[in-house]
Amino acid sequence: MTDITIIGNGNMARGIATRALAASKTVEILGQDAGKAQALAAELGAGVASGTTAQDPQGSIVVLAVPFDAAKSVVSTYGAALEGKTIVDITNPVNFETFDSLVVEPGTSAAEEIAALAPAGASVVKAFNTTFAGTLVAGESDGQPLDVFIAGDDDAAARAVSGFASAAGMRPLVVGPLKRARELEGFQFVLMTLQANPEFADFNWDTGLKVTN
Amino acid sequence: MTDITIIGNGNMARGIATRALAASKTVEILGQDAGKAQALAAELGAGVASGTTAQDPQGSIVVLAVPFDAAKSVVSTYGAALEGKTIVDITNPVNFETFDSLVVEPGTSAAEEIAALAPAGASVVKAFNTTFAGTLVAGESDGQPLDVFIAGDDDAAARAVSGFASAAGMRPLVVGPLKRARELEGFQFVLMTLQANPEFADFNWDTGLKVTN
Repeated sequence: MTDITIIGNGNMARGIATRALAASKTVEILGQDAGKAQALAAELGAGVASGTTAQDPQGSIVVLAVPFDAAKSVVSTYGAALEGKTIVDITNPVNFETFDSLVVEPGTSAAEEIAALAPAGASVVKAFNTTFAGTLVAGESDGQPLDVFIAGDDDAAARAVSGFASAAGMRPLVVGPLKRARELEGFQFVLMTLQANPEFADFNWDTGLKVTN
Repeated sequence: MTDITIIGNGNMARGIATRALAASKTVEILGQDAGKAQALAAELGAGVASGTTAQDPQGSIVVLAVPFDAAKSVVSTYGAALEGKTIVDITNPVNFETFDSLVVEPGTSAAEEIAALAPAGASVVKAFNTTFAGTLVAGESDGQPLDVFIAGDDDAAARAVSGFASAAGMRPLVVGPLKRARELEGFQFVLMTLQANPEFADFNWDTGLKVTN
């Protein structure tokens, strides 16, 4: 029995897996490279399983912890193996050549493009695109719980991701339908440009985005 | 000598004027209704001047503290009287009928539409669209300084607004060119939908948007 499958073995995979373990979830890491996935699983401990993306994901929640193009490829390749799953898209489809726009057209989002590739029985949820990897590992930013902005068309799927975030010590904010992903991706793109801007010396890919109240 | 002209006499005018006075700026309130502008000026005290929008604005910074349609009308009507000014657009062009989109097309923003109406010698800066009126009056949200996201094509104008925000005890974040206003408006639209959503009982138009680091 696996709660959460994480596709990828990079920093975001590590961060989300760390939160999943904090929530007492069972976790599986699937990577393109079996050795790297196994190394991350061993680092995480706590019975984390590993394998390659040649295997079908076992978790009811499948987190695509890979860049946008790879995420699309993963969803297309898995196809029917994702039926019934809650697919979590965490990507920020930034044009890294210009750092001046997203690579998706105005009025749409990475999440919607990924949803268009998913099988009918799967639900795509946008989440964790504003939480940098280091803050997920730490479980906080500036001593405050992380806000997790969540968008999805399927209420049960959005609630599943919300429940995971809450159990992991974060504050979930379900903001609306999947098309709200555009606004989530757009704002995080802006914050990413600040990390890369030498004028923001204090922003080193360790910031959080927080609604204070 | 007037530092800041505020067009409007509503809650946002009160909030921005309060911050301007905290920064020891000289302030002028211009409203459609002379009596209402005068009442707000009297409430603020500290030598705040008032008048109607039939008068030319005297401040080097002119804050459009009115809704989007009114802001466009003000800029069109003033025309050449705004030459040399830094025009601050604080609007959120939300479609309040559907509460499901902005009224500006994807790929553009209220700020860019207002800039298109401004005279050549004026510079439009987006700012204060994520700071609700009550937090501006209080000067904080949840005990933390307010972040002010600023976008503009003219560096000197953006720095003028940044300097005002900083002098008023807020943290300015100059995020880039005026087209970044789209992302600022889009995200605040999302946060506004949460204020109106009964599931977010703690969000009562008093939240702040903060980058933690």
